[in-house]
Amino acid sequence: MVPGRVYDAMSKPIVGHLDAFFFQVVEDIRGLLRTAFGTENTFTMAISGTGSAGMEAAVANFVEPGSKFVVLANGFFCDRITEMGKRYGAEVVRLEKPWGEAFSDAEATEFIRNEKPRVVAFVQAETSTGVFQASKAICAAAHEVGALVIADVVTSLGGMPVQLDANGIDIAYSCSQKGLSCPPGLAPISLSPRAIEWLRAKTTPQRTWYLDLKLLDQYYDGAHRYHHTAPISMFYALREALVSIAEEGVENRWARHQRNHLAFVAGIEAMGLKMHVAEGPRLCTLNTPRVPEGIDDLKVRQRLLAEHDIDVAGGFGPLAGKVFRVGIMGPLSTVENVLMLLDAFEKCLRAEGYQPAASGREAAAAFYASQKS
Amino acid sequence: MVPGRVYDAMSKPIVGHLDAFFFQVVEDIRGLLRTAFGTENTFTMAISGTGSAGMEAAVANFVEPGSKFVVLANGFFCDRITEMGKRYGAEVVRLEKPWGEAFSDAEATEFIRNEKPRVVAFVQAETSTGVFQASKAICAAAHEVGALVIADVVTSLGGMPVQLDANGIDIAYSCSQKGLSCPPGLAPISLSPRAIEWLRAKTTPQRTWYLDLKLLDQYYDGAHRYHHTAPISMFYALREALVSIAEEGVENRWARHQRNHLAFVAGIEAMGLKMHVAEGPRLCTLNTPRVPEGIDDLKVRQRLLAEHDIDVAGGFGPLAGKVFRVGIMGPLSTVENVLMLLDAFEKCLRAEGYQPAASGREAAAAFYASQKS
Repeated sequence: MVPGRVYDAMSKPIVGHLDAFFFQVVEDIRGLLRTAFGTENTFTMAISGTGSAGMEAAVANFVEPGSKFVVLANGFFCDRITEMGKRYGAEVVRLEKPWGEAFSDAEATEFIRNEKPRVVAFVQAETSTGVFQASKAICAAAHEVGALVIADVVTSLGGMPVQLDANGIDIAYSCSQKGLSCPPGLAPISLSPRAIEWLRAKTTPQRTWYLDLKLLDQYYDGAHRYHHTAPISMFYALREALVSIAEEGVENRWARHQRNHLAFVAGIEAMGLKMHVAEGPRLCTLNTPRVPEGIDDLKVRQRLLAEHDIDVAGGFGPLAGKVFRVGIMGPLSTVENVLMLLDAFEKCLRAEGYQPAASGREAAAAFYASQKS
Repeated sequence: MVPGRVYDAMSKPIVGHLDAFFFQVVEDIRGLLRTAFGTENTFTMAISGTGSAGMEAAVANFVEPGSKFVVLANGFFCDRITEMGKRYGAEVVRLEKPWGEAFSDAEATEFIRNEKPRVVAFVQAETSTGVFQASKAICAAAHEVGALVIADVVTSLGGMPVQLDANGIDIAYSCSQKGLSCPPGLAPISLSPRAIEWLRAKTTPQRTWYLDLKLLDQYYDGAHRYHHTAPISMFYALREALVSIAEEGVENRWARHQRNHLAFVAGIEAMGLKMHVAEGPRLCTLNTPRVPEGIDDLKVRQRLLAEHDIDVAGGFGPLAGKVFRVGIMGPLSTVENVLMLLDAFEKCLRAEGYQPAASGREAAAAFYASQKS
């Protein structure tokens, strides 16, 4: 869901892509994105493509042909990074986990120490499973062996603490929709000074031109050397979305997402459903309750859409038919929405033959009440 | 300049990137783009990036490492294609012309016959010079030696006849701004059946994932297999821009652009200025009058912007300080604007010390009057 003010900003008259006004917008975005990313990185900007263009920019610029590339693989987007790594000629080595589990510090550290790769990639927030991956130990182990760290923060940015600097993440990319609540069209990206240094020292030829981060840096920073025509309207929209986040305060926003996530979980569990992801590494933005035995998740979801106008996604890959994927983020993450959602969810589950143990809505309401006292 | 109705369409509420409504928008765009491109190509869509992403999609998908790649080089964007061809490992062979000249059928044909490349690229409409390149002989020669043809139609689409099928162009890409008068953010692209066949038979590995045309085809056509999250708002805007073009009628639109271009040229020549490009291969969308001797083009342009709110670009590269680049396209291409522009241009030239031979505005008005009779 996109706030009206963001749509309004997006439809303001465009200016040229070398206009001083546009670069002011870029600078505003740089500053505001830094706060959302939790970083002081100078190289913080937005790629002119959607989230996957950010992923490809990360892989194309940092993963070199023939180099060892470790991917911590526990979901769909880890597989996409793997595919890109292979396309760019890397020797991809994967540590695998079932979809829905996070890597422990010890197992990630041991794997990275043994493999000694040039680059490590992981997904901080996996949209396909609902898992939040702790980042600090991964980054520490990677730096210990001299590797750079790429983190996919597509579903965490703007909704949960990404904390690039505190964690030690070198390259992070995201999207403009989801947690930032702007229409899709841009891929925020941030590079640590270590990543920049690495990029400057790089001697292997760069394939991609459109996603060449060195050229993009010359366009957006300093010299403003013409590279490509940026999608001006999307930049207007992203700035407004970030301003709206800054007005709320990123910490307040994270707390809001967490509170509403916890209320939703309280409701889900009261109904007798189980969360697929263990307590701890759960995303606040994307919740994955398991589909109760004997229930057809598609029918429940179709009913939610038809009768309540609520769009809940299904699982896919190994989780097809096994989980619901319930996004509660941005302006949608409110007390009213969580209560309404649980109520509708309960009705649809009942209609499809599931008998909830107790009222999810009441449990969530009780959770909210307990938070106030 | 973007019509208000396009801004309005762009700010309509977004839907999911796998929503049936979105694919209806995609189908509308496919049909409308076909008319603008002058093609029956099934594979006609928009890449989720700006014009240069279209260029990179063309090169990355069709120019193979080690293969011979002919570039007809007579401007800035030919150099960009050359750079991309090199990055993707091709043996790039260039036929060069001074900036502002077009290739004759004979010289292009002879070069292509001699070089026997796998792929030929040229720029149909060069924004850096104002040259329109005739396409038919190039395509015929390329097909004779079994090569595919890539055409950059960034500054022709929507303003001049691109005519993919009649010319025999295999791969064409453009942008959503310029002739289509939509904000930048998408790169329309069209592939001939020959190009599709070539793509299907291709066995060398594909580097780019984001711009992989095979995967994009599976997303936009038939199976609607999830690839990336498309920039939904930009698709709304592009559809509305194309609907507005269809309402005017593409032929009417081309005629309008040509009429206003000819009036502008009549005015420029009446003032005693010379067009940089010879009569014949001139773009109707982008005009390049030469800067008169002894005149500082930057001062004239700054005055135009400050005193008349008119943004005229300067030449660059070999044409720096030598030409003005005057875009007259989309909703800006009107009788009133041409007359106003010539008037303002004359005033600013006078103020900077140039004495026009006669009134440009009056000459243009006379041209319009002659067209009516």
